[in-house]
Amino acid sequence: MKLSSQGYKGTRDFYPEDKRLQKYLFSTWRKVVESYGYEEYDGPMLEETEIYRAKSGEELVDQQSYRFEDRGGRDVTMRPEMTPTVARMVAARRQELSYPARWYSIPNLWRYERPQRGRLREHWQLNVDIFGVETIDAELELISIAHDLMSAIGATDDMYTIKVNSRQLTAIIMADYLELDGEKSHHMMKLLDRRAKMEQSAFEEEAMQIMGTQEGVNKLKELVEAKSMGDLPEQIREAGPVRQIQLLFTHLRDNRITNVNFDVSLMRGFDYYTDIVFEVFDNSPDNNRSLFGGGRYDGLVGMFGVEPVPTAGFGVGDVTMLDFLEVHNLKPEPRSETDVYIVAVGDVLRQAQGVARLLRQAGLNVALDISTRKADKKTKSGVAKHVPYLLFVGEEELNQERFILRNVKTQEEEKLSLEEISQKVKP
Amino acid sequence: MKLSSQGYKGTRDFYPEDKRLQKYLFSTWRKVVESYGYEEYDGPMLEETEIYRAKSGEELVDQQSYRFEDRGGRDVTMRPEMTPTVARMVAARRQELSYPARWYSIPNLWRYERPQRGRLREHWQLNVDIFGVETIDAELELISIAHDLMSAIGATDDMYTIKVNSRQLTAIIMADYLELDGEKSHHMMKLLDRRAKMEQSAFEEEAMQIMGTQEGVNKLKELVEAKSMGDLPEQIREAGPVRQIQLLFTHLRDNRITNVNFDVSLMRGFDYYTDIVFEVFDNSPDNNRSLFGGGRYDGLVGMFGVEPVPTAGFGVGDVTMLDFLEVHNLKPEPRSETDVYIVAVGDVLRQAQGVARLLRQAGLNVALDISTRKADKKTKSGVAKHVPYLLFVGEEELNQERFILRNVKTQEEEKLSLEEISQKVKP
Repeated sequence: MKLSSQGYKGTRDFYPEDKRLQKYLFSTWRKVVESYGYEEYDGPMLEETEIYRAKSGEELVDQQSYRFEDRGGRDVTMRPEMTPTVARMVAARRQELSYPARWYSIPNLWRYERPQRGRLREHWQLNVDIFGVETIDAELELISIAHDLMSAIGATDDMYTIKVNSRQLTAIIMADYLELDGEKSHHMMKLLDRRAKMEQSAFEEEAMQIMGTQEGVNKLKELVEAKSMGDLPEQIREAGPVRQIQLLFTHLRDNRITNVNFDVSLMRGFDYYTDIVFEVFDNSPDNNRSLFGGGRYDGLVGMFGVEPVPTAGFGVGDVTMLDFLEVHNLKPEPRSETDVYIVAVGDVLRQAQGVARLLRQAGLNVALDISTRKADKKTKSGVAKHVPYLLFVGEEELNQERFILRNVKTQEEEKLSLEEISQKVKP
Repeated sequence: MKLSSQGYKGTRDFYPEDKRLQKYLFSTWRKVVESYGYEEYDGPMLEETEIYRAKSGEELVDQQSYRFEDRGGRDVTMRPEMTPTVARMVAARRQELSYPARWYSIPNLWRYERPQRGRLREHWQLNVDIFGVETIDAELELISIAHDLMSAIGATDDMYTIKVNSRQLTAIIMADYLELDGEKSHHMMKLLDRRAKMEQSAFEEEAMQIMGTQEGVNKLKELVEAKSMGDLPEQIREAGPVRQIQLLFTHLRDNRITNVNFDVSLMRGFDYYTDIVFEVFDNSPDNNRSLFGGGRYDGLVGMFGVEPVPTAGFGVGDVTMLDFLEVHNLKPEPRSETDVYIVAVGDVLRQAQGVARLLRQAGLNVALDISTRKADKKTKSGVAKHVPYLLFVGEEELNQERFILRNVKTQEEEKLSLEEISQKVKP
């Protein structure tokens, strides 16, 4: 029987050159979040379905998840997001943990959906959360980290915008300003979420269905057309959540972060947000969309039967960010982890193994071509693998204890001792 | 509704201190395999079931795997091992890859089984493979790496033994020396696999059932009681595979690896091995068992309808190795990735954020306690997180631009400038 060499639909095979790019992204992420004192955690790929049903929303669990019964009859789901897991973990040690707890993770996540640009069935996501801080300083830190994550991959402030809104403000707008009941509020939030992608006329038509009167639609238009907090209708401008956002913006400016906008339409999908929400948008016309985001969700830990813990966090997907690197031409040059590729010339493989061992002891990463092919074929392999240096080892070199080191990029060759080689390659 | 804060059975939650230990193991692994020129790859967590059915064995697929139908009716399995995936990936680019290809990965793997010591439902495994080398130099390199992996975690040669056997030798023994047919060979291999855990009398009884005569049982005993290759029955001693193993042992000695034993009973579970197999055994009486192993499996890539590629490799599980660290008292001391924990004393949070920013720019990992608690509570948090230095920032310190740095271990305190602090913490 011949098996197919195609991987499962919507997943990726990471060949070394692909994995290298992903590792560059992950190590950049780790560097930034660890610079703020975040500690890495991890949880299982599989959880009992109930923890997603409770907060990820029914649609996700029933239609878009990898959900099945295990052999013991348990209803399990391959994690579509990390937040329920981390909330569960904090709840389990609610008393023992020391706060503020700053945690991050880079799990792989699964969604059953039609694969498309920026969305695959399996993807990785950096999750950054802070537990135990109820003040706006948590959001300030998270947005600063989001900004630093962008800078660390080479993005400049003009390439993207950080949009901010508040769920508490949204609640006030729905109940007090637009005077909508629960169900109508829900429809209005869905409408606002889609507004950027809609024609103005279609937006107004749907708005009319919800608001019922032209006066109502006008009120709504006054609201959504506000370019800044100062443009907001007076009734809302003085609301507590607006002051909170203003305070946040002031502190962000102190941190030299200025590419932030207030956006009254920003909703974010998940139901669990309770206050500030934010999203990073790509400004490029070729990629004009949300890159990632997060916010505050103070209620989640308490779902597990413990005293609630104030929580804020965000997640960044690898597929989206790899697209961003592509669109903005920010991909780093490929460079192997291997420093030196040894080509044994003639029947000296045994001695070449000794040379490789000595260079490894000096701290170099050394691949020895142990195939039985000719030297020119071996040389080609080393070059194809993007190894920066080739080292030629033959009878004569072994006798002289000096070997030919070739810099692949410049094509320069030098005859050097082992000590000189290690100095040259890793000064 | 109150949700359970327990994770799914047979899985682990990695709190930061657990994750730190796992990261220590993974980074040690990466360092060793990259020093030999191995490149990291990765593949999807989910594969179509047929690729496991073909080679992992029916029992694994039908009884021990996480197998289900996706929403599109495809028969899929959460990977129980990485080898079928890597063989598929190599087959898909059979022509384009440059050989020898040295690849490694650290995937999470799933098995449905009753959780027990050393075996969980989700575990991680270092997979190391070399493609395109048909000579014993591949096995020589892999066993050298296995040895270096043990040294890198602090294991000395007396702590473990590397056992070696050959599937080709086993085939010769079964057919020519014991004169068994296919079915009886299969039973004999299973019996040999269990021999170390059996009473001598039970072993002889089962051997009698397979061999049929006392003469046959005696032949078998002569074989299994051989302590070295020189003790083997003469008929086998001269066989090609024995010479190969002898050559391998000679080269291993050249590499200063001497804790290797020939073991005619070594079978290894998977059906796909074609020649040399090896296994690393823990010598400790508290943990006397196989730690990890591998071998040559030249047939696997060819299953995907391409020309076969010579392949050898091995896998190391994280659960087993964490147990090994425990048993041999080799666990490293916990140390946070965070360098400095800032305690703001009084109403100076805003200024302390500035201090944190400057220290980050100098390359330090800095956590600022942004909670609204008293200074002594903040101090306790920093200590509980195993951060090596605390930094106290108050009005007076801000005016003097000198801050109190406390070394948590020695309890020494010094009043230093920011530049002196970064020098002190990361010289």
